[in-house]
Amino acid sequence: MFKIGLVGGTGYTGVELLRLLAMHPQAEPVVITSRGEAGMAVAEMFPNLRGFVDLRFSEPDLDQLTACDLVFFATPNGTAMQMTPELLAAGVRVVDLAADFRLKDPQVWQQWYGMEHACPELLEEAVYGLPEMNRAAIRQARLVANPGCYPTAVTLGFLPLLEAGLVDSASLIADAKSGVSGAGRKASVGSLLAECGESFKAYAAPGHRHLPEIRQNLAQLIGSPVGLTFVPHLLPMIRGIHATLYARLQREADVQQLFEQRYAGEYFVDVLPAGAHPETRSVRGVNQCRLAVHRPQQGDTLVVLSVIDNLVKGAAGQAIQNMNLMLGLDEKLGLESVALLP
Amino acid sequence: MFKIGLVGGTGYTGVELLRLLAMHPQAEPVVITSRGEAGMAVAEMFPNLRGFVDLRFSEPDLDQLTACDLVFFATPNGTAMQMTPELLAAGVRVVDLAADFRLKDPQVWQQWYGMEHACPELLEEAVYGLPEMNRAAIRQARLVANPGCYPTAVTLGFLPLLEAGLVDSASLIADAKSGVSGAGRKASVGSLLAECGESFKAYAAPGHRHLPEIRQNLAQLIGSPVGLTFVPHLLPMIRGIHATLYARLQREADVQQLFEQRYAGEYFVDVLPAGAHPETRSVRGVNQCRLAVHRPQQGDTLVVLSVIDNLVKGAAGQAIQNMNLMLGLDEKLGLESVALLP
Amino acid sequence: MFKIGLVGGTGYTGVELLRLLAMHPQAEPVVITSRGEAGMAVAEMFPNLRGFVDLRFSEPDLDQLTACDLVFFATPNGTAMQMTPELLAAGVRVVDLAADFRLKDPQVWQQWYGMEHACPELLEEAVYGLPEMNRAAIRQARLVANPGCYPTAVTLGFLPLLEAGLVDSASLIADAKSGVSGAGRKASVGSLLAECGESFKAYAAPGHRHLPEIRQNLAQLIGSPVGLTFVPHLLPMIRGIHATLYARLQREADVQQLFEQRYAGEYFVDVLPAGAHPETRSVRGVNQCRLAVHRPQQGDTLVVLSVIDNLVKGAAGQAIQNMNLMLGLDEKLGLESVALLP
Amino acid sequence: MFKIGLVGGTGYTGVELLRLLAMHPQAEPVVITSRGEAGMAVAEMFPNLRGFVDLRFSEPDLDQLTACDLVFFATPNGTAMQMTPELLAAGVRVVDLAADFRLKDPQVWQQWYGMEHACPELLEEAVYGLPEMNRAAIRQARLVANPGCYPTAVTLGFLPLLEAGLVDSASLIADAKSGVSGAGRKASVGSLLAECGESFKAYAAPGHRHLPEIRQNLAQLIGSPVGLTFVPHLLPMIRGIHATLYARLQREADVQQLFEQRYAGEYFVDVLPAGAHPETRSVRGVNQCRLAVHRPQQGDTLVVLSVIDNLVKGAAGQAIQNMNLMLGLDEKLGLESVALLP
Repeated sequence: MFKIGLVGGTGYTGVELLRLLAMHPQAEPVVITSRGEAGMAVAEMFPNLRGFVDLRFSEPDLDQLTACDLVFFATPNGTAMQMTPELLAAGVRVVDLAADFRLKDPQVWQQWYGMEHACPELLEEAVYGLPEMNRAAIRQARLVANPGCYPTAVTLGFLPLLEAGLVDSASLIADAKSGVSGAGRKASVGSLLAECGESFKAYAAPGHRHLPEIRQNLAQLIGSPVGLTFVPHLLPMIRGIHATLYARLQREADVQQLFEQRYAGEYFVDVLPAGAHPETRSVRGVNQCRLAVHRPQQGDTLVVLSVIDNLVKGAAGQAIQNMNLMLGLDEKLGLESVALLP
Repeated sequence: MFKIGLVGGTGYTGVELLRLLAMHPQAEPVVITSRGEAGMAVAEMFPNLRGFVDLRFSEPDLDQLTACDLVFFATPNGTAMQMTPELLAAGVRVVDLAADFRLKDPQVWQQWYGMEHACPELLEEAVYGLPEMNRAAIRQARLVANPGCYPTAVTLGFLPLLEAGLVDSASLIADAKSGVSGAGRKASVGSLLAECGESFKAYAAPGHRHLPEIRQNLAQLIGSPVGLTFVPHLLPMIRGIHATLYARLQREADVQQLFEQRYAGEYFVDVLPAGAHPETRSVRGVNQCRLAVHRPQQGDTLVVLSVIDNLVKGAAGQAIQNMNLMLGLDEKLGLESVALLP
Repeated sequence: MFKIGLVGGTGYTGVELLRLLAMHPQAEPVVITSRGEAGMAVAEMFPNLRGFVDLRFSEPDLDQLTACDLVFFATPNGTAMQMTPELLAAGVRVVDLAADFRLKDPQVWQQWYGMEHACPELLEEAVYGLPEMNRAAIRQARLVANPGCYPTAVTLGFLPLLEAGLVDSASLIADAKSGVSGAGRKASVGSLLAECGESFKAYAAPGHRHLPEIRQNLAQLIGSPVGLTFVPHLLPMIRGIHATLYARLQREADVQQLFEQRYAGEYFVDVLPAGAHPETRSVRGVNQCRLAVHRPQQGDTLVVLSVIDNLVKGAAGQAIQNMNLMLGLDEKLGLESVALLP
Repeated sequence: MFKIGLVGGTGYTGVELLRLLAMHPQAEPVVITSRGEAGMAVAEMFPNLRGFVDLRFSEPDLDQLTACDLVFFATPNGTAMQMTPELLAAGVRVVDLAADFRLKDPQVWQQWYGMEHACPELLEEAVYGLPEMNRAAIRQARLVANPGCYPTAVTLGFLPLLEAGLVDSASLIADAKSGVSGAGRKASVGSLLAECGESFKAYAAPGHRHLPEIRQNLAQLIGSPVGLTFVPHLLPMIRGIHATLYARLQREADVQQLFEQRYAGEYFVDVLPAGAHPETRSVRGVNQCRLAVHRPQQGDTLVVLSVIDNLVKGAAGQAIQNMNLMLGLDEKLGLESVALLP
């Protein structure tokens, strides 16, 4: 049984990691830290964990954390980079679910996250934890940057097209919609049910922090910069991301076959039959990305529909997938459940 | 007091027309037909109308309808075209809230609506009831085709850009999201709360009936065909449409100023300040379109955000606006209420 | 045109008062105070008010407020009691939408609200603003305590039964359910969409602040204390209260007729036909209480179903109703709109 | 591996049974019937099952069903009673998720379900499948009547009080609220998101089919008839039942301790600490009932709060629990997952 530490367990990615770990046959959470809630039983804050998780939140303690095989950071941006060097030095593997190690360029990081990076020397070593792109490197990694939710949905949707050089990489459009759990479990007027229920809006159209991350991913796929317009929107629901992607076809190809072949061996990516429209609920609670590709009216604009659960394949589930790879376990371990529908 | 008839009053556009007419100072519903519900008190089906509407549904009766000044059709597609010629012959003005008279080309209509048009000779005369495009013609019209909900939101969003010749008309993209009331008040598994609540999906990506209508509008604005990709999505909420529009800028311009000037005299179109993101709830229950325009990262892709209430500016409210114009009344009469928020 | 002041306009009762005042023909808001948001345009915070309310939030200023005919307090509990004596002294009428003047006994108030009352001498003078109980007194009042949302729904439901002495007043049960806007527009984890969406729970079962207020109302109806169990619940929706009331019948009577007769002259209370079940949406946005009364299986337990919009008849609408009475206007002025359905 | 048949798999209890069976280590669905959808892949209708269930719906075939170890009926009321005698004769165990075998008295059944019972001789043998009441009998049963959703939540909440003779059994009140999935996956105007979203109402106050079932359960507990008022309500959400139960205390007792002791050995019933309020989301997707008991203001009215997922402990999960008992398996097998929160 691998010993798992969790730094910052009071948010939605925290409770979701604990839910998944509670059902994982070979990994066990042994310490969960929270400065603000130290002493409180985890199951008091998250009643779904009653009977499954007996831990209490504790103050972060380096000795306890270095006794773990792997530590997850489910903290606000800027926290993991403070503690990670010591953990790595102690031989502990680290998966950061925040953004600290996602961008390779510390200048870009500073520009978008508004603070200086505390350990830029680790940015090169950190592996971007999208197994469908970087599986081999993740297996060897000490430090994994777990991808953002939007970047996961968008990158998996564009990936086959860009790898195949099939579309104009200068005019990509990602119109993405997220449930409100993506904003986290923090008191904020904008996330109140009475504010975002029964309503819909775009936000951060001028520029969202996931934009440079997506651009970095897509550029890696083709070896040069891409032109991308990314507009996120807030859905009046809890879980789920739907990315609607638009790209200009540059030459004829069987795109349905392309998607099916590219993801044939990927357990966590499901390409739907031609003509389908994935629903976010079809992945509720599970570590899966479901994709469909359309070519409306046989024109030159391709439309890719990509859905994930932002808290699972977009956060905690993908983190467990990365953990499995880093610990030499079966990648699917603990992640084979069925989505909750309806 | 003008006498108003309503053919087909059991759907959401029906109850919304009645709500608005109940508060209109110069128009009064005198007959509401429904074959299926003849005899039932309207307020029994729609309890919000108790105390405001005393009518009962009745079998359609030509004498009663020809005694009206104006008749609204809130019927399924294909019904209005059967009865309209007789009403016009009797001197009654007609506003069709369905699609029967929206497309100018009967071949295109037949292709998308799957039936032969019953009175193609009226298609040319019928005025497309988007006052912000066709106000003068609506004032003179005997027959108005009330626009679809998506076409209203999309057309008003693209209109200033296309009129000004500012963007590439060959690569327009409209990513549109609608509340489920757009599917109407009919028993259907796909519209159950348990099916579409807490979920989100695209639908009809290969081609939606509003596509030819939008194309016709946009082509009229520039005098030649446009290239448009239109993907509608279903929101887990009742009312509201949000269209996110993407267009390639072809030359420099102050687009904020362009939008403000174009709509300066339009009471029902509100251009938000630069940087804003309209919410659908800001127009809940009112006959308004709120717009914002963005140019992310100062690139060459413009993003227009357009929101309406699909049942008001997207249906019944616009129908009243058209009625006001056709009857020589103040265009705003009965339509000056404040949106319900939260 | 009467001049109206509004102290504390940044919450949901604030925006709702402004929505209703914007459509009121004889009252006009001239000052809206907010210490936290002074300087901000009201329509920037509440986009539904764009084009209808041009005011900005300002620091509370006694001179401005004493120039008003009437001042509404839409502030947290404990604020109105600080400023009310000065306003009354200046001849301004006051309607407090918070709880400061609802309870007659300052000891009870202190017990439930956790602070000493600042002007207990006004408690006797203050009129409890439920017009269906106290209309004549409200017409003469300088100071009106606008009822709580739960107390409005519960009191109107029990009123005919208690006035008629028909039920056992020692074993009343009120099982009440409220939309989340009742918790106000303040950042709080418990009111996040991701916390209270798609879920339901009771809260404050041991004792809620509205319990003594309801008890006081019901005791006033029969002239002696009542035994009441009151359990509030949180609904995963924005607006609406549904109170399900249980009472033991003590003698035979035609309760349907009793309800209809008691409320025959009350414009804002609508008794549904026998057998009906009122929906909260049937009063969405309007100043109405809809009631139905059942006697299941002809047993001795009566069930009363009572719905209101917590922000209208449960707060801002009732405040306008009280204002109309206090200013000698038609009680219905500005309050005759139709509920938004669907 | 036990072979499981499922008659009628196109509803919500059907998909939920399949979800749970897909994760069950010792039971496997081998046939799923649907007259209407014969030939369609199950995973096409329920996309969450893609990759987990490869079956297609088939016409009901007695040979296929009699080859099963156990058959579930997830059919409309009145279907199971037609086929059950033959299946039992062939040695197949049967669990009916509909109401056919829940009531012991065929006259009462006929009165509430509007048809004559097809095999009244089986009503005595059929075991009511609430393991917390009837575990031993279920283990021996050939035929189990799976309880209704409301009866499960209400019975488990009243059970300790009635068994202990602590409350007045003549004046019980159950105010119950259910998510809309309880109405099933059938096209019906009343269950549309646009009809029941953002609204709340009671229904069937004069008498609901679950009333005689609950009465039968409660009467069994005390050996004599009870007086019960039961009012169901419709929640604007998908899953979850919350029953708020009221009972008059007849003598002093430590009710918290009573509940904890009664359910100490029950894995699927969780008594919360004193003062708690269970949320329906805390049992979303899992086979659990969470309970809390209150005595407001130390009066003589007890309040029990009981939550379940109507599709799991209220239907499919309890059916699997019964299956485990009937097949001699560990009662918890396949049912130990963690609720999905948020």
